[in-house]
Amino acid sequence: MFSRSSPITLQAIGVVRSDFKEPTSARLDLKKIKAEIEIDPELTEALEGLEGFSHIIVLYWLHRAVFDKKTLKTYPMGNQNVLLQGLFAVRTPKRPNPIGKSTVRLLSRRDNVLYVQGLDAIDGSLVLDIKPYIPGYDSAAGATVPDWVNIEEY
Amino acid sequence: MFSRSSPITLQAIGVVRSDFKEPTSARLDLKKIKAEIEIDPELTEALEGLEGFSHIIVLYWLHRAVFDKKTLKTYPMGNQNVLLQGLFAVRTPKRPNPIGKSTVRLLSRRDNVLYVQGLDAIDGSLVLDIKPYIPGYDSAAGATVPDWVNIEEY
Repeated sequence: MFSRSSPITLQAIGVVRSDFKEPTSARLDLKKIKAEIEIDPELTEALEGLEGFSHIIVLYWLHRAVFDKKTLKTYPMGNQNVLLQGLFAVRTPKRPNPIGKSTVRLLSRRDNVLYVQGLDAIDGSLVLDIKPYIPGYDSAAGATVPDWVNIEEY
Repeated sequence: MFSRSSPITLQAIGVVRSDFKEPTSARLDLKKIKAEIEIDPELTEALEGLEGFSHIIVLYWLHRAVFDKKTLKTYPMGNQNVLLQGLFAVRTPKRPNPIGKSTVRLLSRRDNVLYVQGLDAIDGSLVLDIKPYIPGYDSAAGATVPDWVNIEEY
């Protein structure tokens, strides 16, 4: 049986600098947005070799999201034309642990700064982890989604 | 400039039940491993609709990993035939914030229990978040990796 555990404590490793200042549900434009990820200079050495990958995975803290445990279902992308879905079935930021996960293009690295494209984290978001994107591990061939997912929106 | 922020606190939302009991670097077999993810029963409603997706993303706590801030570089998969890489360029669990990210097949859901295949989290791992896998958002077409990445290993 599941039992609640002690809290887990994290420390941010970096911060997002972006022209994307406010949350929006319009995701299409985000693929073009360029942003910088500034990593703690003490961790610069830990970034060595990352520039060999075309894409990276960014885990970040959705610091503006407020989770209300009475709101366990939501309309995907705010679209009330589809049925309410459990929050774990959508990508809403209002989650028990508001961790965002984005796969972005890594344009370049200069010391402790990563230059990326397609990051949907707003300016000032705290970065929790950076991982290399490895196609055979991170993608799922033939993955299917419910009809209500409008791929164009993502 | 990056400055250290206040700690971020998380609370696990579930736990992994798996026959995979000890960490290993042999990843190939893991794709076949079936596991159960037991979510906090109070969050069962938040899982509704997830079963419409063939694959999900699991974020979990690498509770056995010990990060040593003097060890910022590592050999990928322990392979000393390649150059040392920064830890953010590999998928080692020994990270500043040891959060694991797996894309797994969702076989079925029964109330608050998810039955999955391909989860490389060991038994007892605490689950932090569950997200639907959305191909157009989570995969990166044409992604490239450095020569040292042996795709077969992942």
